[in-house]
Amino acid sequence: MDSPKTKITIIGVGLMGGSLALALKDKFPDYHIIGYARSKKSYDKLVGLKILDFVERDLGKAVSSADFVVLALPVFSIIACFRQIAGFLKPGAIVFDLGSSRVLIDRAAKKYLPGHVEFVGCHPLCGSEKAGAQFSRKDLYQKMVCLITSENKTAGVKVVQSLWEQLGSKVVFISSSGHDRILSIVSHLPHLVSFSLTALVAEDYLEFIPPSFKSLSRISGSPAQVWADIFLSNKKNILRDSKKFIANAEKLRKLIKTNNRRQLVNFIEQVNAKYSMIEKKS
Amino acid sequence: MDSPKTKITIIGVGLMGGSLALALKDKFPDYHIIGYARSKKSYDKLVGLKILDFVERDLGKAVSSADFVVLALPVFSIIACFRQIAGFLKPGAIVFDLGSSRVLIDRAAKKYLPGHVEFVGCHPLCGSEKAGAQFSRKDLYQKMVCLITSENKTAGVKVVQSLWEQLGSKVVFISSSGHDRILSIVSHLPHLVSFSLTALVAEDYLEFIPPSFKSLSRISGSPAQVWADIFLSNKKNILRDSKKFIANAEKLRKLIKTNNRRQLVNFIEQVNAKYSMIEKKS
Repeated sequence: MDSPKTKITIIGVGLMGGSLALALKDKFPDYHIIGYARSKKSYDKLVGLKILDFVERDLGKAVSSADFVVLALPVFSIIACFRQIAGFLKPGAIVFDLGSSRVLIDRAAKKYLPGHVEFVGCHPLCGSEKAGAQFSRKDLYQKMVCLITSENKTAGVKVVQSLWEQLGSKVVFISSSGHDRILSIVSHLPHLVSFSLTALVAEDYLEFIPPSFKSLSRISGSPAQVWADIFLSNKKNILRDSKKFIANAEKLRKLIKTNNRRQLVNFIEQVNAKYSMIEKKS
Repeated sequence: MDSPKTKITIIGVGLMGGSLALALKDKFPDYHIIGYARSKKSYDKLVGLKILDFVERDLGKAVSSADFVVLALPVFSIIACFRQIAGFLKPGAIVFDLGSSRVLIDRAAKKYLPGHVEFVGCHPLCGSEKAGAQFSRKDLYQKMVCLITSENKTAGVKVVQSLWEQLGSKVVFISSSGHDRILSIVSHLPHLVSFSLTALVAEDYLEFIPPSFKSLSRISGSPAQVWADIFLSNKKNILRDSKKFIANAEKLRKLIKTNNRRQLVNFIEQVNAKYSMIEKKS
Protein backbone atom coordinates (compact mmCIF):
# COMPACT_ATOMS: atom_id res chain seq x y z
CA MET A 1 0.00 0.00 0.00
CA ASP A 2 1.25 3.51 -0.86
CA SER A 3 1.87 5.82 2.05
CA PRO A 4 -0.93 8.37 2.11
CA LYS A 5 -0.22 11.78 0.61
CA THR A 6 0.49 14.73 2.90
CA LYS A 7 -2.64 16.87 2.96
CA ILE A 8 -2.46 20.62 3.39
CA THR A 9 -5.60 22.71 3.78
CA ILE A 10 -5.42 26.46 3.24
CA ILE A 11 -8.18 28.58 4.71
CA GLY A 12 -8.22 32.03 3.13
CA VAL A 13 -6.90 31.69 -0.41
CA GLY A 14 -6.01 35.27 -1.28
CA LEU A 15 -2.62 36.51 -2.41
CA MET A 16 -0.75 35.01 0.57
CA GLY A 17 -2.63 31.70 0.72
CA GLY A 18 -2.66 31.31 -3.05
CA SER A 19 1.06 32.00 -3.31
CA LEU A 20 1.71 29.44 -0.58
CA ALA A 21 -0.33 26.87 -2.54
CA LEU A 22 1.73 27.55 -5.67
CA ALA A 23 5.05 27.46 -3.77
CA LEU A 24 4.14 24.18 -2.03
CA LYS A 25 3.01 22.53 -5.27
CA ASP A 26 6.19 23.63 -7.00
CA LYS A 27 8.43 22.22 -4.26
CA PHE A 28 6.32 19.19 -3.23
CA PRO A 29 4.34 18.00 -6.28
CA ASP A 30 3.03 15.01 -4.31
CA TYR A 31 1.30 17.03 -1.59
CA HIS A 32 -2.47 17.26 -1.85
CA ILE A 33 -3.42 20.92 -1.48
CA ILE A 34 -6.96 21.78 -0.54
CA GLY A 35 -8.42 25.27 -0.41
CA TYR A 36 -11.47 26.23 1.58
CA ALA A 37 -14.03 28.53 -0.04
CA ARG A 38 -16.96 29.73 2.03
CA SER A 39 -19.06 31.34 -0.71
CA LYS A 40 -20.14 29.96 -4.08
CA LYS A 41 -18.50 32.98 -5.68
CA SER A 42 -15.06 32.35 -4.23
CA TYR A 43 -15.49 28.61 -4.90
CA ASP A 44 -16.02 29.34 -8.61
CA LYS A 45 -13.12 31.78 -8.66
CA LEU A 46 -10.68 29.34 -7.00
CA VAL A 47 -11.73 26.42 -9.20
CA GLY A 48 -11.18 28.66 -12.23
CA LEU A 49 -7.71 29.75 -11.11
CA LYS A 50 -6.45 26.13 -10.90
CA ILE A 51 -3.94 26.85 -8.15
CA LEU A 52 -5.29 24.11 -5.83
CA ASP A 53 -5.79 20.35 -6.13
CA PHE A 54 -9.24 20.62 -4.64
CA VAL A 55 -11.63 23.30 -3.42
CA GLU A 56 -13.90 22.41 -0.50
CA ARG A 57 -16.91 24.40 0.70
CA ASP A 58 -17.52 22.45 3.93
CA LEU A 59 -15.14 23.72 6.62
CA GLY A 60 -15.30 20.51 8.70
CA LYS A 61 -14.50 18.32 5.69
CA ALA A 62 -11.78 20.75 4.59
CA VAL A 63 -9.78 20.31 7.80
CA SER A 64 -10.73 16.88 9.20
CA SER A 65 -8.15 14.84 7.29
CA ALA A 66 -5.51 17.56 6.91
CA ASP A 67 -1.95 17.08 8.19
CA PHE A 68 -1.42 20.83 7.96
CA VAL A 69 -4.05 23.53 8.30
CA VAL A 70 -2.93 27.01 7.23
CA LEU A 71 -4.92 30.09 8.21
CA ALA A 72 -4.22 32.92 5.75
CA LEU A 73 -6.90 35.32 6.94
CA PRO A 74 -7.19 38.78 8.53
CA VAL A 75 -6.16 38.70 12.23
CA PHE A 76 -9.61 38.58 13.85
CA SER A 77 -10.82 36.05 11.28
CA ILE A 78 -7.91 33.79 12.25
CA ILE A 79 -8.99 34.02 15.87
CA ALA A 80 -12.63 33.27 14.99
CA CYS A 81 -11.50 30.38 12.80
CA PHE A 82 -9.67 28.64 15.68
CA ARG A 83 -13.04 28.10 17.36
CA GLN A 84 -14.72 26.99 14.13
CA ILE A 85 -12.15 24.33 13.25
CA ALA A 86 -11.22 23.16 16.78
CA GLY A 87 -13.72 20.28 16.82
CA PHE A 88 -12.74 18.91 13.41
CA LEU A 89 -8.93 18.78 13.57
CA LYS A 90 -7.35 15.32 13.54
CA PRO A 91 -4.88 14.31 16.27
CA GLY A 92 -1.32 15.20 15.34
CA ALA A 93 -2.36 17.88 12.85
CA ILE A 94 -0.19 21.01 12.66
CA VAL A 95 -1.99 24.35 12.46
CA PHE A 96 -0.14 27.48 11.43
CA ASP A 97 -1.18 30.96 10.35
CA LEU A 98 0.31 33.92 8.47
CA GLY A 99 -1.01 36.67 10.76
CA SER A 100 0.72 40.06 10.89
CA SER A 101 0.19 40.71 14.59
CA ARG A 102 1.01 37.94 17.03
CA VAL A 103 0.08 38.48 20.68
CA LEU A 104 -3.69 38.11 20.27
CA ILE A 105 -3.43 35.26 17.75
CA ASP A 106 -0.91 33.23 19.75
CA ARG A 107 -2.98 33.70 22.92
CA ALA A 108 -6.20 32.65 21.15
CA ALA A 109 -4.52 29.57 19.66
CA LYS A 110 -3.60 28.39 23.16
CA LYS A 111 -7.11 29.00 24.38
CA TYR A 112 -9.18 27.54 21.54
CA LEU A 113 -7.17 24.82 19.78
CA PRO A 114 -7.35 21.26 21.18
CA GLY A 115 -4.34 19.72 22.96
CA HIS A 116 -3.96 16.98 20.34
CA VAL A 117 -2.81 19.41 17.61
CA GLU A 118 0.25 21.65 17.43
CA PHE A 119 0.08 25.34 16.65
CA VAL A 120 2.95 27.30 15.08
CA GLY A 121 2.58 31.08 14.79
CA CYS A 122 4.15 32.35 11.56
CA HIS A 123 4.46 35.78 9.98
CA PRO A 124 6.17 35.85 6.58
CA LEU A 125 7.52 39.37 5.95
CA CYS A 126 6.24 39.73 2.43
CA GLY A 127 3.06 40.49 0.58
CA SER A 128 1.86 42.76 -2.15
CA GLU A 129 -0.38 45.73 -2.68
CA LYS A 130 -2.20 43.54 -5.20
CA ALA A 131 -4.81 41.69 -3.17
CA GLY A 132 -6.50 38.49 -4.37
CA ALA A 133 -5.64 34.92 -5.32
CA GLN A 134 -5.34 35.90 -8.99
CA PHE A 135 -2.07 37.69 -8.16
CA SER A 136 -0.52 34.60 -6.53
CA ARG A 137 3.16 33.99 -7.28
CA LYS A 138 5.06 30.82 -6.51
CA ASP A 139 8.17 32.86 -5.62
CA LEU A 140 6.49 35.22 -3.12
CA TYR A 141 8.23 33.59 -0.15
CA GLN A 142 11.64 33.21 -1.73
CA LYS A 143 14.50 35.12 -0.07
CA MET A 144 12.04 36.56 2.45
CA VAL A 145 12.16 36.43 6.23
CA CYS A 146 9.50 34.35 8.00
CA LEU A 147 9.09 35.09 11.69
CA ILE A 148 8.02 32.24 14.00
CA THR A 149 6.67 33.23 17.42
CA SER A 150 6.33 29.81 19.07
CA GLU A 151 7.97 29.76 22.48
CA ASN A 152 9.46 26.24 22.28
CA LYS A 153 11.15 24.43 19.43
CA THR A 154 8.80 21.45 19.47
CA ALA A 155 8.74 18.78 16.76
CA GLY A 156 5.88 20.63 15.03
CA VAL A 157 7.77 23.92 15.08
CA LYS A 158 10.79 22.23 13.49
CA VAL A 159 8.60 20.74 10.76
CA VAL A 160 7.08 24.13 9.93
CA GLN A 161 10.49 25.83 10.08
CA SER A 162 11.82 23.30 7.61
CA LEU A 163 8.80 23.83 5.36
CA TRP A 164 9.46 27.59 5.13
CA GLU A 165 13.16 27.01 4.57
CA GLN A 166 12.45 24.62 1.73
CA LEU A 167 10.24 27.34 0.17
CA GLY A 168 13.26 29.66 0.27
CA SER A 169 12.45 31.75 3.36
CA LYS A 170 14.84 32.58 6.17
CA VAL A 171 13.23 31.70 9.51
CA VAL A 172 13.83 33.98 12.51
CA PHE A 173 12.42 33.20 15.98
CA ILE A 174 11.02 36.01 18.10
CA SER A 175 8.58 36.34 21.02
CA SER A 176 4.98 37.37 20.27
CA SER A 177 5.33 40.63 22.18
CA GLY A 178 8.74 41.43 20.67
CA HIS A 179 7.22 40.80 17.26
CA ASP A 180 4.33 43.21 17.82
CA ARG A 181 6.61 45.90 19.23
CA ILE A 182 9.03 45.81 16.30
CA LEU A 183 6.52 45.19 13.51
CA SER A 184 4.55 48.17 14.74
CA ILE A 185 7.43 50.42 13.66
CA VAL A 186 8.71 48.63 10.58
CA SER A 187 5.41 47.54 9.02
CA HIS A 188 2.24 48.76 10.69
CA LEU A 189 3.31 52.40 11.01
CA PRO A 190 4.46 52.62 7.35
CA HIS A 191 0.97 51.53 6.31
CA LEU A 192 -0.72 54.12 8.53
CA VAL A 193 1.66 56.73 7.06
CA SER A 194 1.11 55.66 3.46
CA PHE A 195 -2.69 55.69 3.90
CA SER A 196 -2.56 59.20 5.45
CA LEU A 197 -0.47 60.48 2.54
CA THR A 198 -2.33 58.86 -0.36
CA ALA A 199 -5.62 60.17 1.07
CA LEU A 200 -4.43 63.70 0.16
CA VAL A 201 -4.11 63.09 -3.58
CA ALA A 202 -6.62 64.85 -5.83
CA GLU A 203 -7.37 63.90 -9.43
CA ASP A 204 -5.68 66.98 -10.93
CA TYR A 205 -2.35 66.01 -9.34
CA LEU A 206 -2.18 62.70 -11.16
CA GLU A 207 -0.03 63.80 -14.09
CA PHE A 208 2.58 65.20 -11.71
CA ILE A 209 3.19 62.13 -9.53
CA PRO A 210 6.98 61.60 -9.28
CA PRO A 211 8.82 58.38 -8.31
CA SER A 212 9.05 59.56 -4.67
CA PHE A 213 5.29 59.68 -4.20
CA LYS A 214 4.90 56.36 -6.01
CA SER A 215 7.28 54.68 -3.56
CA LEU A 216 5.35 55.98 -0.58
CA SER A 217 1.90 55.20 -1.97
CA ARG A 218 2.66 51.66 -3.21
CA ILE A 219 1.37 49.95 -0.06
CA SER A 220 -1.79 52.10 -0.12
CA GLY A 221 -3.32 49.36 -2.28
CA SER A 222 -3.19 46.97 0.70
CA PRO A 223 -6.54 45.36 1.60
CA ALA A 224 -8.72 47.31 4.04
CA GLN A 225 -10.09 44.34 6.01
CA VAL A 226 -6.61 42.97 6.62
CA TRP A 227 -5.17 46.31 7.72
CA ALA A 228 -8.07 47.38 9.92
CA ASP A 229 -7.52 44.12 11.83
CA ILE A 230 -3.77 44.61 12.09
CA PHE A 231 -4.12 48.13 13.51
CA LEU A 232 -6.82 47.08 15.99
CA SER A 233 -4.95 43.97 17.11
CA ASN A 234 -1.70 45.86 17.76
CA LYS A 235 -3.34 48.97 19.11
CA LYS A 236 -1.06 49.89 21.99
CA ASN A 237 2.15 49.70 19.95
CA ILE A 238 0.80 51.46 16.86
CA LEU A 239 -0.73 54.28 18.93
CA ARG A 240 2.58 54.86 20.72
CA ASP A 241 4.72 54.68 17.56
CA SER A 242 2.43 56.83 15.41
CA LYS A 243 2.63 59.45 18.17
CA LYS A 244 6.45 59.38 17.97
CA PHE A 245 6.24 59.64 14.20
CA ILE A 246 3.93 62.67 14.38
CA ALA A 247 6.33 64.27 16.88
CA ASN A 248 9.12 63.94 14.29
CA ALA A 249 6.94 65.47 11.58
CA GLU A 250 6.03 68.34 13.93
CA LYS A 251 9.71 68.85 14.73
CA LEU A 252 10.52 69.18 11.02
CA ARG A 253 7.57 71.56 10.58
CA LYS A 254 8.86 73.74 13.38
CA LEU A 255 12.37 73.88 11.89
CA ILE A 256 10.84 74.91 8.55
CA LYS A 257 8.58 77.49 10.18
CA THR A 258 11.47 79.08 12.07
CA ASN A 259 13.88 78.98 9.10
CA ASN A 260 16.30 76.82 11.07
CA ARG A 261 18.35 75.59 8.13
CA ARG A 262 21.22 74.28 10.24
CA GLN A 263 19.03 72.00 12.38
CA LEU A 264 17.05 70.94 9.32
CA VAL A 265 20.25 69.81 7.57
CA ASN A 266 21.27 68.10 10.80
CA PHE A 267 18.02 66.17 11.08
CA ILE A 268 18.13 65.01 7.45
CA GLU A 269 21.81 64.01 7.74
CA GLN A 270 20.96 61.81 10.71
CA VAL A 271 18.16 60.25 8.67
CA ASN A 272 20.60 59.74 5.76
CA ALA A 273 22.84 57.77 8.15
CA LYS A 274 19.92 55.56 9.27
CA TYR A 275 18.98 55.01 5.65
CA SER A 276 22.53 53.85 4.90
CA MET A 277 22.28 51.28 7.72
CA ILE A 278 19.02 49.95 6.22
CA GLU A 279 20.46 49.87 2.73
CA LYS A 280 23.59 48.00 3.81
CA LYS A 281 21.55 45.42 5.70
CA SER A 282 19.22 44.59 2.81
CA MET B 1 35.24 77.38 -41.67
CA ASP B 2 33.43 75.00 -39.33
CA SER B 3 30.47 76.37 -37.39
CA PRO B 4 31.45 76.63 -33.74
CA LYS B 5 30.34 73.85 -31.40
CA THR B 6 27.38 74.39 -29.11
CA LYS B 7 28.78 74.95 -25.61
CA ILE B 8 26.88 73.86 -22.52
CA THR B 9 28.13 74.68 -19.05
CA ILE B 10 26.76 72.78 -16.08
CA ILE B 11 27.13 74.37 -12.65
CA GLY B 12 26.60 71.79 -9.92
CA VAL B 13 27.70 68.43 -11.28
CA GLY B 14 26.03 66.00 -8.86
CA LEU B 15 23.65 63.22 -9.78
CA MET B 16 21.26 65.49 -11.72
CA GLY B 17 23.92 67.60 -13.46
CA GLY B 18 26.16 64.61 -14.16
CA SER B 19 23.27 62.61 -15.62
CA LEU B 20 22.35 65.58 -17.82
CA ALA B 21 25.97 65.73 -19.07
CA LEU B 22 25.88 62.02 -19.95
CA ALA B 23 22.46 62.27 -21.63
CA LEU B 24 23.50 65.31 -23.69
CA LYS B 25 26.78 63.69 -24.79
CA ASP B 26 24.93 60.54 -25.78
CA LYS B 27 22.36 62.43 -27.88
CA PHE B 28 24.60 65.27 -29.15
CA PRO B 29 28.16 63.96 -29.38
CA ASP B 30 29.32 67.25 -30.96
CA TYR B 31 28.29 69.48 -28.05
CA HIS B 32 31.10 70.73 -25.87
CA ILE B 33 30.10 70.06 -22.27
CA ILE B 34 31.85 71.98 -19.54
CA GLY B 35 31.42 71.40 -15.82
CA TYR B 36 32.20 73.96 -13.17
CA ALA B 37 34.01 72.81 -10.03
CA ARG B 38 34.56 75.29 -7.24
CA SER B 39 36.92 73.27 -5.07
CA LYS B 40 40.10 71.42 -5.96
CA LYS B 41 38.54 68.29 -4.49
CA SER B 42 35.48 68.33 -6.73
CA TYR B 43 37.67 69.32 -9.69
CA ASP B 44 39.77 66.19 -9.18
CA LYS B 45 36.67 64.03 -8.72
CA LEU B 46 34.99 65.34 -11.89
CA VAL B 47 38.14 65.00 -13.98
CA GLY B 48 38.46 61.43 -12.74
CA LEU B 49 34.85 60.53 -13.57
CA LYS B 50 35.29 61.53 -17.25
CA ILE B 51 31.67 62.53 -17.74
CA LEU B 52 32.52 66.04 -19.03
CA ASP B 53 34.58 67.37 -21.95
CA PHE B 54 36.21 69.94 -19.71
CA VAL B 55 36.22 70.93 -16.05
CA GLU B 56 36.68 74.63 -15.26
CA ARG B 57 37.44 76.13 -11.86
CA ASP B 58 36.92 79.79 -12.81
CA LEU B 59 33.20 80.60 -12.78
CA GLY B 60 33.51 83.58 -15.15
CA LYS B 61 35.44 81.55 -17.71
CA ALA B 62 33.04 78.62 -17.29
CA VAL B 63 30.01 80.63 -18.41
CA SER B 64 31.34 83.48 -20.60
CA SER B 65 31.33 81.57 -23.90
CA ALA B 66 28.48 79.15 -23.08
CA ASP B 67 25.37 78.96 -25.28
CA PHE B 68 23.56 77.16 -22.44
CA VAL B 69 24.23 77.51 -18.73
CA VAL B 70 22.55 74.88 -16.54
CA LEU B 71 22.24 75.39 -12.79
CA ALA B 72 21.89 72.01 -11.06
CA LEU B 73 22.24 73.21 -7.48
CA PRO B 74 20.18 73.41 -4.27
CA VAL B 75 17.46 76.10 -4.52
CA PHE B 76 19.19 78.90 -2.59
CA SER B 77 22.50 78.16 -4.32
CA ILE B 78 20.75 78.63 -7.68
CA ILE B 79 19.48 82.01 -6.52
CA ALA B 80 22.95 83.05 -5.29
CA CYS B 81 24.48 81.80 -8.54
CA PHE B 82 22.30 84.10 -10.68
CA ARG B 83 24.09 87.09 -9.12
CA GLN B 84 27.51 85.49 -9.48
CA ILE B 85 27.18 84.67 -13.19
CA ALA B 86 25.07 87.68 -14.31
CA GLY B 87 28.06 89.80 -15.35
CA PHE B 88 29.74 87.04 -17.38
CA LEU B 89 26.92 85.67 -19.54
CA LYS B 90 27.18 86.27 -23.28
CA PRO B 91 24.29 87.91 -25.16
CA GLY B 92 21.80 85.35 -26.45
CA ALA B 93 22.80 82.70 -23.89
CA ILE B 94 20.05 80.52 -22.47
CA VAL B 95 20.13 79.86 -18.73
CA PHE B 96 18.06 77.08 -17.22
CA ASP B 97 17.97 75.33 -13.87
CA LEU B 98 16.68 72.06 -12.38
CA GLY B 99 15.28 73.49 -9.15
CA SER B 100 12.56 71.65 -7.23
CA SER B 101 10.68 74.73 -6.03
CA ARG B 102 9.91 77.46 -8.53
CA VAL B 103 8.40 80.68 -7.20
CA LEU B 104 11.55 82.01 -5.52
CA ILE B 105 13.88 80.86 -8.30
CA ASP B 106 11.78 82.24 -11.14
CA ARG B 107 11.40 85.56 -9.30
CA ALA B 108 15.15 85.78 -8.64
CA ALA B 109 15.97 85.00 -12.27
CA LYS B 110 13.89 87.98 -13.39
CA LYS B 111 15.56 90.20 -10.84
CA TYR B 112 19.20 89.23 -11.25
CA LEU B 113 19.81 87.93 -14.79
CA PRO B 114 20.61 90.48 -17.52
CA GLY B 115 18.05 91.29 -20.24
CA HIS B 116 20.32 89.97 -22.98
CA VAL B 117 19.97 86.31 -21.88
CA GLU B 118 16.88 84.09 -21.67
CA PHE B 119 15.94 82.14 -18.59
CA VAL B 120 13.87 78.93 -18.65
CA GLY B 121 12.74 77.45 -15.33
CA CYS B 122 12.83 73.64 -15.45
CA HIS B 123 12.06 70.93 -12.92
CA PRO B 124 12.61 67.36 -14.13
CA LEU B 125 10.50 65.00 -11.99
CA CYS B 126 13.20 62.45 -11.35
CA GLY B 127 16.23 61.93 -9.20
CA SER B 128 17.67 59.31 -6.95
CA GLU B 129 18.38 58.69 -3.32
CA LYS B 130 21.99 58.13 -4.41
CA ALA B 131 23.55 61.58 -4.35
CA GLY B 132 26.74 62.46 -6.22
CA ALA B 133 28.09 62.62 -9.77
CA GLN B 134 29.46 59.08 -9.49
CA PHE B 135 25.87 57.76 -9.70
CA SER B 136 25.12 59.63 -12.94
CA ARG B 137 23.07 57.72 -15.52
CA LYS B 138 22.54 58.76 -19.10
CA ASP B 139 18.94 57.46 -18.98
CA LEU B 140 17.86 59.37 -15.84
CA TYR B 141 15.62 61.74 -17.83
CA GLN B 142 14.13 59.17 -20.15
CA LYS B 143 10.36 58.68 -19.91
CA MET B 144 10.23 61.26 -17.13
CA VAL B 145 8.14 64.42 -16.92
CA CYS B 146 10.00 67.74 -17.04
CA LEU B 147 8.00 70.73 -15.82
CA ILE B 148 8.71 74.15 -17.37
CA THR B 149 7.46 77.19 -15.47
CA SER B 150 8.20 79.96 -17.96
CA GLU B 151 5.17 82.17 -18.55
CA ASN B 152 5.61 82.68 -22.29
CA LYS B 153 6.65 80.27 -25.02
CA THR B 154 9.57 82.36 -26.25
CA ALA B 155 12.18 81.10 -28.72
CA GLY B 156 14.45 80.15 -25.82
CA VAL B 157 11.69 78.22 -24.08
CA LYS B 158 11.03 76.26 -27.28
CA VAL B 159 14.72 75.43 -27.64
CA VAL B 160 14.91 74.10 -24.07
CA GLN B 161 11.62 72.21 -24.46
CA SER B 162 13.00 70.53 -27.57
CA LEU B 163 16.23 69.70 -25.72
CA TRP B 164 14.33 67.85 -22.96
CA GLU B 165 12.15 66.08 -25.50
CA GLN B 166 15.20 64.87 -27.40
CA LEU B 167 16.54 63.49 -24.11
CA GLY B 168 13.31 61.48 -23.79
CA SER B 169 11.40 63.62 -21.28
CA LYS B 170 7.77 64.69 -21.58
CA VAL B 171 7.52 68.46 -21.10
CA VAL B 172 4.53 69.87 -19.21
CA PHE B 173 4.01 73.64 -18.75
CA ILE B 174 2.75 74.94 -15.43
CA SER B 175 2.84 78.26 -13.52
CA SER B 176 5.46 78.73 -10.81
CA SER B 177 2.82 79.00 -8.08
CA GLY B 178 0.82 76.02 -9.41
CA HIS B 179 4.04 74.04 -9.46
CA ASP B 180 4.88 74.81 -5.84
CA ARG B 181 1.34 74.07 -4.66
CA ILE B 182 1.17 70.65 -6.36
CA LEU B 183 4.78 69.57 -5.81
CA SER B 184 4.35 70.31 -2.12
CA ILE B 185 1.89 67.41 -1.92
CA VAL B 186 3.37 64.97 -4.42
CA SER B 187 7.08 65.41 -3.71
CA HIS B 188 8.01 67.67 -0.79
CA LEU B 189 5.56 66.16 1.70
CA PRO B 190 6.60 62.54 0.86
CA HIS B 191 10.18 63.52 1.75
CA LEU B 192 9.15 65.09 5.06
CA VAL B 193 7.13 61.95 5.79
CA SER B 194 9.92 59.55 4.84
CA PHE B 195 12.45 61.48 6.94
CA SER B 196 10.08 61.41 9.95
CA LEU B 197 9.62 57.66 9.61
CA THR B 198 13.21 56.60 8.96
CA ALA B 199 14.31 58.66 11.97
CA LEU B 200 12.48 56.11 14.18
CA VAL B 201 14.52 53.08 13.13
CA ALA B 202 16.86 51.58 15.70
CA GLU B 203 19.75 49.24 14.98
CA ASP B 204 18.05 46.16 16.47
CA TYR B 205 15.14 46.48 14.03
CA LEU B 206 17.36 46.10 10.98
CA GLU B 207 16.91 42.36 10.44
CA PHE B 208 13.13 42.78 10.43
CA ILE B 209 12.76 45.48 7.77
CA PRO B 210 10.05 44.33 5.31
CA PRO B 211 9.49 45.58 1.73
CA SER B 212 6.86 48.08 2.95
CA PHE B 213 9.34 49.96 5.14
CA LYS B 214 11.95 49.84 2.39
CA SER B 215 9.57 51.53 -0.06
CA LEU B 216 8.84 54.32 2.39
CA SER B 217 12.45 54.87 3.45
CA ARG B 218 14.01 54.80 -0.03
CA ILE B 219 13.96 58.59 -0.46
CA SER B 220 15.44 59.05 3.04
CA GLY B 221 18.85 58.89 1.36
CA SER B 222 18.12 62.21 -0.40
CA PRO B 223 20.76 64.92 0.15
CA ALA B 224 20.25 67.14 3.22
CA GLN B 225 21.41 70.42 1.68
CA VAL B 226 19.08 70.02 -1.29
CA TRP B 227 16.06 69.13 0.84
CA ALA B 228 16.56 71.75 3.52
CA ASP B 229 16.48 74.33 0.70
CA ILE B 230 13.36 72.83 -0.89
CA PHE B 231 11.41 72.86 2.38
CA LEU B 232 12.48 76.42 3.21
CA SER B 233 11.78 77.74 -0.27
CA ASN B 234 8.26 76.25 -0.38
CA LYS B 235 7.48 76.91 3.24
CA LYS B 236 3.85 78.05 3.06
CA ASN B 237 2.68 75.09 0.99
CA ILE B 238 4.62 72.42 2.87
CA LEU B 239 3.47 73.75 6.25
CA ARG B 240 -0.17 73.67 5.12
CA ASP B 241 0.04 70.22 3.51
CA SER B 242 2.00 68.58 6.32
CA LYS B 243 -0.70 69.84 8.68
CA LYS B 244 -3.37 68.13 6.54
CA PHE B 245 -1.29 64.97 6.48
CA ILE B 246 -0.92 64.95 10.28
CA ALA B 247 -4.69 65.48 10.58
CA ASN B 248 -5.21 62.28 8.52
CA ALA B 249 -2.77 60.36 10.71
CA GLU B 250 -4.55 61.65 13.83
CA LYS B 251 -7.90 60.61 12.34
CA LEU B 252 -6.61 57.06 11.81
CA ARG B 253 -5.19 57.03 15.36
CA LYS B 254 -8.55 58.04 16.75
CA LEU B 255 -10.37 55.30 14.83
CA ILE B 256 -7.87 52.76 16.16
CA LYS B 257 -8.14 54.11 19.70
CA THR B 258 -11.95 53.92 19.67
CA ASN B 259 -12.05 50.48 17.98
CA ASN B 260 -14.02 51.93 15.07
CA ARG B 261 -13.44 49.09 12.63
CA ARG B 262 -16.17 50.14 10.20
CA GLN B 263 -14.77 53.68 9.70
CA LEU B 264 -11.23 52.31 9.57
CA VAL B 265 -12.17 49.97 6.73
CA ASN B 266 -13.97 52.86 5.06
CA PHE B 267 -10.93 55.14 5.25
CA ILE B 268 -8.59 52.48 3.84
CA GLU B 269 -11.02 51.59 1.04
CA GLN B 270 -11.12 55.23 -0.04
CA VAL B 271 -7.32 55.24 -0.02
CA ASN B 272 -7.34 52.00 -2.07
CA ALA B 273 -9.46 53.80 -4.69
CA LYS B 274 -7.03 56.75 -4.84
CA TYR B 275 -4.13 54.32 -5.16
CA SER B 276 -5.87 52.65 -8.13
CA MET B 277 -6.14 56.05 -9.84
CA ILE B 278 -2.42 56.63 -9.35
CA GLU B 279 -1.54 53.15 -10.55
CA LYS B 280 -3.66 53.45 -13.70
CA LYS B 281 -2.15 56.82 -14.55
CA SER B 282 1.46 55.70 -14.26
